[in-house]
Order: sequence, then C-alpha cells, then structure tokens
Amino acid sequence: MNSNNIRPYKEEFDYSYTSGAYATIEMLKANPIVVRAVYIHSKYAGIENIDGFCREKGIPVLYNDRVFERINRKENTYVLGVFRKYFCRLMTNRPHIVLVNPSDMGNLGTVIRTMAGLNMHDLAVVTPAADIFHPKTIRASMGALFHIRFQCFDSFDAYKKAFPDHVCFPFTPEGKISLNRRNCPRVPLFSLLFGNEASGLPAQCRSTGTSVTIPQSSLVDSLNLSVAAGIGIFIFAEKNELI
Amino acid sequence: MNSNNIRPYKEEFDYSYTSGAYATIEMLKANPIVVRAVYIHSKYAGIENIDGFCREKGIPVLYNDRVFERINRKENTYVLGVFRKYFCRLMTNRPHIVLVNPSDMGNLGTVIRTMAGLNMHDLAVVTPAADIFHPKTIRASMGALFHIRFQCFDSFDAYKKAFPDHVCFPFTPEGKISLNRRNCPRVPLFSLLFGNEASGLPAQCRSTGTSVTIPQSSLVDSLNLSVAAGIGIFIFAEKNELI
Repeated sequence: MNSNNIRPYKEEFDYSYTSGAYATIEMLKANPIVVRAVYIHSKYAGIENIDGFCREKGIPVLYNDRVFERINRKENTYVLGVFRKYFCRLMTNRPHIVLVNPSDMGNLGTVIRTMAGLNMHDLAVVTPAADIFHPKTIRASMGALFHIRFQCFDSFDAYKKAFPDHVCFPFTPEGKISLNRRNCPRVPLFSLLFGNEASGLPAQCRSTGTSVTIPQSSLVDSLNLSVAAGIGIFIFAEKNELI
Repeated sequence: MNSNNIRPYKEEFDYSYTSGAYATIEMLKANPIVVRAVYIHSKYAGIENIDGFCREKGIPVLYNDRVFERINRKENTYVLGVFRKYFCRLMTNRPHIVLVNPSDMGNLGTVIRTMAGLNMHDLAVVTPAADIFHPKTIRASMGALFHIRFQCFDSFDAYKKAFPDHVCFPFTPEGKISLNRRNCPRVPLFSLLFGNEASGLPAQCRSTGTSVTIPQSSLVDSLNLSVAAGIGIFIFAEKNELI
C-alpha cells in the first residue's frame, strides 16, 4: 500500500484507521482480514509485538513517520491500523441495541465499548447518525468496534421489518416502566432503543413495544446517552443472564 | 463588570463561565449568588427569559458579541454566565462519590450529571485531577455542577481523615464482590471510589474497605469511567433507596 494514498479520514473513503496500539491490536485480534496495513512511528516504544502479529497474518507493517504527521497531527499516537470498511449482519437470535440517530462519535464509541463489556454484540444504528467508522468513534470504543456486529438502517421501520420478532423497549423519560432489577423484563429476544442526545427517540419509536425509563431526579433533564445506555444495558444483561 | 476583563478560561482565574443557555439557567436557579454577569449574543433566539430572571436577582445582563468571539470562538453558544469560583463542604451524613485523579473533563462533568440525576449530591475529587470549574467540565455536566457539593483533596488519606465513618467501596476489575442488586451492600454511609481513566485506582484505595467490580466480559479491559460510575452509582442508589 502506498502511504501517499492515506489521507485524513473522510466518511466517503472506503477505508478508515485505528489510532493507537490498543485499538489496533483489538482489530488485529478480532478481525485481521480487514486490515490493509499497520503504520508504526519511529517513536513507538510499546511492548506489544505488533510487528510479529502482522507478519504472522501477512499484514504489511510500514515504518513511516510522515503518515502520522499528515493524518494524526493533534494526537500522540504512534500506531495506525488501516482497514477497509466492511459490513456485518446482526444475529436474528440475539438481543440488539438500537441507537436512533446518535450524533456524537464519543457516545457511539462508548456505547460500543459498553456492549462488548456486557455481552451484547449486536448494534443497529438508525441513520442519520455519527459515522461508526470514524477514527474518533473507534477510539472511543477502545477498539471494541471490532468485537461487535453492527448494521445501519435508513429508518426504524426498516430495522423493525428486518427483525419483527424482537420485543422493543424504548428508553424515554416518560416510559411506562420505571426500570429496576426486580421489574426488568426477562425476554429471550429484545431490542433496547435509545434516541438522539438532544431530541431523544422519535414518537414512533417511543410507542413501539413497552417504554421504560431509568428512575432519576428532576434535577437533570436526562442522563448522558452513554450513561443511560450503560445502565439500561446493565440491567437487562444482568436480568437476562448475559453477564 | 468590564467585559474587557473576561478572557478565555484559565485554571488560575478566580472566575469561570457556563456556556449555553441550559447550563446558565441551571446555575441561575441553583446558585445565583455566585453569578457575576450573564452575556447574551445578539443572535440568541432562545425562549428562556434569562434577562428577566437576572433582573430579579440583580445580576447584570450584558449584550456584547465581541466577548463571544474572544472566549468561545469554536462553539455556537449565545449565552455565557460568568461566575466566581466557590467552595463547598461535603455533607458528613450523606453518601459520597470519590473520583481519584480523573483526567478527562468530559468524564468528570458526565459523572456530575449522573450524580445529580441519581440523587448523590456529594463529590470528593482527589487531585491531581481535571479542573472541575473548566467550562468544558461544566458543559459536560449540563450545569449539574451547580446542583451538587464538591470538595477537592490533596490525597485519598486527606479525604479518609475528613470522613472516617464512610464505608469505602473501591471499584476495580479485581474487586472482591462482583456487584449485582442482590449482593449490593445496604449501608447508611458509603463512599464509591473510582480511579483514573488509564491507571485505575492506586493500590492504597483498592485495599480500603470492600472492593467491588462490575461484572463484564474479557473482551474489554474496562468500561469507560463515566459508564462504570453510572452503573455503580445506579446499583447503590437503587439498593439504598436514593432513587
């Protein structure tokens, strides 16, 4: 791969990159087949044997400091893993997380990290949404993106049509069930729905299935999206014995 | 207040500012006495009656677009609330959250937002730590900073000495109790300890009280700090009937 071809990330590219040794190694472990090349900066002093791992998998390792200057000016990262974008399909027999129009890459990545940590491996993203392949999303996920399956849908309807058997639980401040671990439903196949940071879930999603809410004080309008999803996923994962 | 005196935030200043109408209104409601002035940009088109609220409390409202250019160049905010920094004391008879060396202002602010949402109102911060008064922290807290009490400590020892009766629960991956709602302790006075994003809790904190862990898969090293704190606070708040 010609390093001159790698440019600061844009959504329309057919490739993206992990930045930092940790996320790069997660990708190499979980999904080496998508990796095109790994760049290592001359200042890299990590103890991970990235070089050896790449050789074993036939992935080119390139030592080229200029690539880092061009791509990653602001950050002190010394490893870049370039990968081609790929598609997944969600499992039909596993619970799903559904993020409807998430706009912040930090939140999207953080929810992905939480999912991998709490054994929920299937993420539906209803667009428009933050770019799941953006290096910032991957960074916030700490490379957990490569451990989960994800699929984008143009609309919530399109998702619902694809997975009609999942019981939906929209999280909204006016939810019918004030969620706790006693009343949390046990269901073999469920979808937890979370809305946009500012506008929440659209009315159509709020009226699907059984709406739930995380009990909270009136001092805040809502919890942060990553935190609400974290608590919601934890309660459902524990009750349904995923963790 | 002479608007020429207001400059882009630095930690050594004796003042800071909220940016955006939402956080400014939270401050005006919760702690008007610290507010020195509120700036409103000519492009501000919000429906909130900030002007009227300030007049009622005798707080100057200034219309001055140049202040926004100087202070807040990157953001599209049209309201700034300048306040003098202040000190609080934690309540001795309430549960505490203890953040040991949090380094990210987004996480610090998000934990504060979660605390206000889940009725835990006392935060100890062990320094060095992200600046609790930084506009970015306040922004991440959505103004919830003004609804809680917080106190900084030079060391964990100093905190422990000040509050010897609180039972400590350090959150660490090797915690003795794998936390769930059944085994979550009920205690009248507790402190939940969370460590730095990269390094976790120092050994001394990990061996204080009873260490706990949030059950999680081996796919991730840990959960994001804000998410781990969110789940931990939720479990303890629910079990101890704070929410």
